[in-house]
Amino acid sequence: MSTVGIDLGGTKVMAVLVENGEVLAKAKRPTPISGGSDAVIAAMVAAARKVDPDGSATGIGIGAPGPVVPGTGVLPAAPNLPGWDHDVNVVDRVSAALGGRAVKLDNDVNVGTLAEWKLGAGRGADDLLGVFVGTGVGAGLILDGRLRQGPRGLAGEIGHTFVAFDQLRNAPVGRGELEDFAGRRSLQQWVDVAPLGESTFLHSLMREGRLKSKAWAEGIEAEDPLTLQLVGRACSALSAAIASVITLVDVERVVLGGGFAERLGEPFRVRLEAEVTERAFAGQTAPVVTARLGDTGGAVGAALLLEHT
Amino acid sequence: MSTVGIDLGGTKVMAVLVENGEVLAKAKRPTPISGGSDAVIAAMVAAARKVDPDGSATGIGIGAPGPVVPGTGVLPAAPNLPGWDHDVNVVDRVSAALGGRAVKLDNDVNVGTLAEWKLGAGRGADDLLGVFVGTGVGAGLILDGRLRQGPRGLAGEIGHTFVAFDQLRNAPVGRGELEDFAGRRSLQQWVDVAPLGESTFLHSLMREGRLKSKAWAEGIEAEDPLTLQLVGRACSALSAAIASVITLVDVERVVLGGGFAERLGEPFRVRLEAEVTERAFAGQTAPVVTARLGDTGGAVGAALLLEHT
Repeated sequence: MSTVGIDLGGTKVMAVLVENGEVLAKAKRPTPISGGSDAVIAAMVAAARKVDPDGSATGIGIGAPGPVVPGTGVLPAAPNLPGWDHDVNVVDRVSAALGGRAVKLDNDVNVGTLAEWKLGAGRGADDLLGVFVGTGVGAGLILDGRLRQGPRGLAGEIGHTFVAFDQLRNAPVGRGELEDFAGRRSLQQWVDVAPLGESTFLHSLMREGRLKSKAWAEGIEAEDPLTLQLVGRACSALSAAIASVITLVDVERVVLGGGFAERLGEPFRVRLEAEVTERAFAGQTAPVVTARLGDTGGAVGAALLLEHT
Repeated sequence: MSTVGIDLGGTKVMAVLVENGEVLAKAKRPTPISGGSDAVIAAMVAAARKVDPDGSATGIGIGAPGPVVPGTGVLPAAPNLPGWDHDVNVVDRVSAALGGRAVKLDNDVNVGTLAEWKLGAGRGADDLLGVFVGTGVGAGLILDGRLRQGPRGLAGEIGHTFVAFDQLRNAPVGRGELEDFAGRRSLQQWVDVAPLGESTFLHSLMREGRLKSKAWAEGIEAEDPLTLQLVGRACSALSAAIASVITLVDVERVVLGGGFAERLGEPFRVRLEAEVTERAFAGQTAPVVTARLGDTGGAVGAALLLEHT
């Protein structure tokens, strides 16, 4: 039995055909920047046909940016998707275009966690946190051997948990949420508000006004003080949020992924794990391990939605 | 079918006999301060016999202070129980003393949440957070209509989640955990480190060097500046931790209980709920409602363990 998985992102649509945990085919196309949700749905359908030309897959799973209310099939207005400005029933639309086959939809980070749990660094753990650090910070939770979705599909929004409760109304950037200290978007904002002398080196690494993960790795390499300060603080904020999850819901393993974390590599993971351990309640910590599936993880996890939700 | 519930606390042992959610009998005795775990177990057995003299209850549930690893029946060393300085298999011991009947053991806050969920302010919610603010701050989670215990019994330890990530090594009190800002124990510590002039009023309310919940209510009533500052900050830290739980695991209701919260009453709840709402992610908040079962909630919830875990 094969299934199609689609990772719907702000810049690309990736589709895979999966059978017994193996990726048999892969297709990638740019997310349409005009034509709104109709064009985006057409791109997903085309990518699905590309990896499964004879339509033999039993179903199609989709991971999408934004909370998805379980069971509705609806992806609400998604700021990261061009022209996706209102609720769209993705499940009905994609199913209709693909011969009425089963379609499942969930959040992109939830499906990334599902993939790591079934096929990657999270295998064998019944209680697992997947944390993905890229532009922002997202997470997924496996609890008692099931993907936690929550009645409103919020579950896993770790980037919006509070790590600095006293900065709700008076911070230079954000309001004290994890994502205000960790992730490329807010790190860049902190550079923007830093005194010019301190941020000169990072400014020299910007491309089109943006700092990519590679630039942060270069700043660390060069021992630039502002880079070290901001990345150190990001690591600290992440460790606090992760330790809080371990203590609050009791997970036995943490899988760390996402473009930013991946680029900073093993030294970042080691430092993060050490601070998570220091913050553990009553010595009860959890190892932080590196995600294994890379950038196909989302699509593969989407394919797994058919069996596991 | 009736069951016995026992709330094992640091100062008292309370037992109830429950049938169809009704409390048929109640007994209370002081927790023995000498004799270690043997004496404490004997007190529990005596209290159970008192409410169920003919031994007709089908089982006995126990709520105890401290994390309990699900399925083991073991209560580890508990700093709040006099002389309880090593692992004891409470389930085996109590069962042996009571004719081999079924005994279940869980954390006191978990069972308090269970009681509010089945019989109190949490009725009808499949995804619920119970928060209890007293000496410290504890919580229980109902997820998808089940009490979340976690593989190590940690689940719900909200007091040890981090709300001030940058205070790990440099705070006058604690290390940035919720319980370092909220709950009677740490509030008192903040008074101890406050400049003498500022803390004079609160010092005048101390009895045997301790500030009870009533004293904090009096400080608010008198508009004492240090009281207002510390209680305001406690409320803020609590709101951050609660909003984080709503966002991280997606609960639809929050039940607020515990001696401190109860004493500060409706104004505290209203303020807390407003700040939780302000902190909500994407407008997705949850109402904060007052616990209904008062100080028998723990014992009643313990009785419910027989049916619901």
